[in-house]
Amino acid sequence: MSAVPSQPPAANLPRALEALSRLLGDRLSTSASVRGHHSNSVTWLESQPPDAVAFPETTEEVATLVAICAENDVPVIPFGAGTSLEGHVNAPHGGVSVSTARMTRIVAVNADDLDAVVQPGVTRGALNAHLRDLGLFFPIDPGADATIGGMTATRASGTNAVRYGTMKDAVLGLTVVLASGQIMRTGGRARKSSAGYDLTRLMVGSEGTLGVVTEITLRLHGQPEAIAAGVCPFPTLRAACDAAIMAIQSGLPAARIELLDAVQVEACNAYSKLSLKAAPTLFLEFHGTPAGVEEQSARFGEIARDLGGGPFDWATRAEDRSRLWQARHDATWAAAALRRGAKPVPTDVCVPISRLADCVEETVADIAASGLVAPIVGHVGDGNFHCLPLVRPGDAAETAACKAFIARLVSRALAMGGTSTGEHGIGQGKMDWLLPEHGGPALDAMRAIKRALDPKNIMNPGKILVP
Amino acid sequence: MSAVPSQPPAANLPRALEALSRLLGDRLSTSASVRGHHSNSVTWLESQPPDAVAFPETTEEVATLVAICAENDVPVIPFGAGTSLEGHVNAPHGGVSVSTARMTRIVAVNADDLDAVVQPGVTRGALNAHLRDLGLFFPIDPGADATIGGMTATRASGTNAVRYGTMKDAVLGLTVVLASGQIMRTGGRARKSSAGYDLTRLMVGSEGTLGVVTEITLRLHGQPEAIAAGVCPFPTLRAACDAAIMAIQSGLPAARIELLDAVQVEACNAYSKLSLKAAPTLFLEFHGTPAGVEEQSARFGEIARDLGGGPFDWATRAEDRSRLWQARHDATWAAAALRRGAKPVPTDVCVPISRLADCVEETVADIAASGLVAPIVGHVGDGNFHCLPLVRPGDAAETAACKAFIARLVSRALAMGGTSTGEHGIGQGKMDWLLPEHGGPALDAMRAIKRALDPKNIMNPGKILVP
Repeated sequence: MSAVPSQPPAANLPRALEALSRLLGDRLSTSASVRGHHSNSVTWLESQPPDAVAFPETTEEVATLVAICAENDVPVIPFGAGTSLEGHVNAPHGGVSVSTARMTRIVAVNADDLDAVVQPGVTRGALNAHLRDLGLFFPIDPGADATIGGMTATRASGTNAVRYGTMKDAVLGLTVVLASGQIMRTGGRARKSSAGYDLTRLMVGSEGTLGVVTEITLRLHGQPEAIAAGVCPFPTLRAACDAAIMAIQSGLPAARIELLDAVQVEACNAYSKLSLKAAPTLFLEFHGTPAGVEEQSARFGEIARDLGGGPFDWATRAEDRSRLWQARHDATWAAAALRRGAKPVPTDVCVPISRLADCVEETVADIAASGLVAPIVGHVGDGNFHCLPLVRPGDAAETAACKAFIARLVSRALAMGGTSTGEHGIGQGKMDWLLPEHGGPALDAMRAIKRALDPKNIMNPGKILVP
Repeated sequence: MSAVPSQPPAANLPRALEALSRLLGDRLSTSASVRGHHSNSVTWLESQPPDAVAFPETTEEVATLVAICAENDVPVIPFGAGTSLEGHVNAPHGGVSVSTARMTRIVAVNADDLDAVVQPGVTRGALNAHLRDLGLFFPIDPGADATIGGMTATRASGTNAVRYGTMKDAVLGLTVVLASGQIMRTGGRARKSSAGYDLTRLMVGSEGTLGVVTEITLRLHGQPEAIAAGVCPFPTLRAACDAAIMAIQSGLPAARIELLDAVQVEACNAYSKLSLKAAPTLFLEFHGTPAGVEEQSARFGEIARDLGGGPFDWATRAEDRSRLWQARHDATWAAAALRRGAKPVPTDVCVPISRLADCVEETVADIAASGLVAPIVGHVGDGNFHCLPLVRPGDAAETAACKAFIARLVSRALAMGGTSTGEHGIGQGKMDWLLPEHGGPALDAMRAIKRALDPKNIMNPGKILVP
């Protein structure tokens, strides 16, 4: 089942493929296996492969490609690492996937200005490897080794967002191929600007429905001089959430505050060979000077103690920190290992932080009542948390139960003043929630913008909204 | 002279005013003095008063007002404190100014979530006075006691932006009355969201050309436990800029880094009774724990010394800090006092920080060559600086020289990869620079969005772009 049923291919598809083949040669593939690899592989959504996959190398090639597709009413679906979670890369109307696998050039790094220009296929891992020796780093960290293009498209964030923001904050400027095949440049290298409409932020998070991003100017940060990281158990989920709130309110500039419920802690113990107490737990990280991170760690320890939590066990050694964060990043796989033969269906919501404890507690009760296995991990500093229901593929009853659970989860978050997704995006999976979340006038405005910039609806159709 | 010449009033104006008068009673004014107060008063642009000024109190009243204006093709011009600098509040096509002077309610403060909901007429000063006892503050500080609505419309920033960001970062959600009279809600109280197009960021900085903002959800911050502030002279403008770059690169989390050239320092000495050395000078502020701000101040002192600057004279006493920042905020008046009978014409550009020293030095040489008096102050941590040419009102030759200087300044900034305005906005004054800065496809996209959301061009027409 998918949000948008598959459609017959465009009548002009053969003509388009012929022209694309002339443009790209063997960098256009229509093989079943390549097409299969370029469709949704996560969540309960059915895979819907494209008619062909293109591997352009330059902005100009993408522009020609889109112009050919526009002329022939053929959909264009941008594809990065394929790690998105709501069916963003499915092709319900067929069309051409534009893989960025050959657009992996780091075009420029401007160390003095703390910025870099990259092609969209660069992964965050590759970028950070390149930056390491320059004393710089790119903080946005959604867990998977996603591409910068994909992260831009979904407005990704992750564990560092509480300190460094999300892709909305990290992107300074873009090169975008529009539905007309025109090449648009937005933003620039200045740190801030009041010159006209903020097209950069409009494109960030538009999931390829307004254009194909072909170059990204990113804001970088200097590597912190010292890093401290640690774990802190709490008697209840509420006490853990309250500790996070107090830390933020008191201005403690935590770089990461991650919540794991007891189920997830046990999963991580088993999978990552840790021996943490099976209790609601915060993973924290502080960045600063050596004296600064020591002071921050001590202060957080006091906050935890006041709430009945602790001890806060922290370290500044790189090996200890790596082991901890590797375990956090492996949380999805650790969760999956809890139930043999089942697949995790990651979903996320985000609420005002004062409602986080309520939302998590109600969700835990909901999980227990519905008989699902669904560990919880959260970017608690942002009020954003993930559930990982473990569902047996092909089991219709379980899939239905999982979908019903997600619907209740989103309703709960919206009722608390939150959002249907903090960082995964709408894709196909959450299209039905856009109206309840934003209301008619905002949805109408989004539709009007989509029609204005993509009148033929060829840019990733069937995602976010129906224009 | 103005960017858009005044136009005859809409034919249906009398009918619209009659309906508005029924709606608002004596909260609609057509008196010449009230109209005169609601037009541009700063810069070289001619004042263009509206046909009437409305003083609504609620979102619903604004919605009815806009619907009446839409029905009668009458322009709607939002008006806050009137402190904007590029003719944003002029009425070149006539119409109705929507003053927010009676929309000054702080609707809610959510201390746990560090957010607040305010009506657009609340000034930043009033908001911070309200927040003081709660241990919170709203950091965006453009100097003038602007309204939050006006700051949202112009994507304002100011001295704190290097640490706390601009209005693009401070606004979590909006209520906006669209050109149709519909009431749209964007964003919300969640810290982050990936749910659909970022309409909030599209509205921030759109200068009232896409709708009238009637409610704003703002991100707040906890008051820092300790604050240190100080001044540091440098032998050259370049050394001062380099010190700012090194501080940022090394991860020193300065809350403010302001540059004053020697001319401006002398002006401040005379106006604010200071006795600073007449040299390029940085004003700095650090926020954190007592130990943290001490460490930051000491580190900055070392950076300054390495570059031949200093001594860095800093203090944590509130009185000393207030005196310093009052002097910085009075920089415009201090500059104005340099030349009796002249009026400052504030303008701003922003460049990548590595080009800041080049841009400032070339601009100082340009000022000298052109015979203008034009002190420079800058938010150097962002690469953003202001020139304040002092021009005798009514002197056509001086006005022309000032306009030519601003044109050269903007060209220089664009050539260095910068923007035509870091924080003042486009308004009427910089419309001609939108195309050179963004290029045809981006300008076309902005126009397409404007036409999609305001097909009759009634929302603040004659600003930013011609649809």
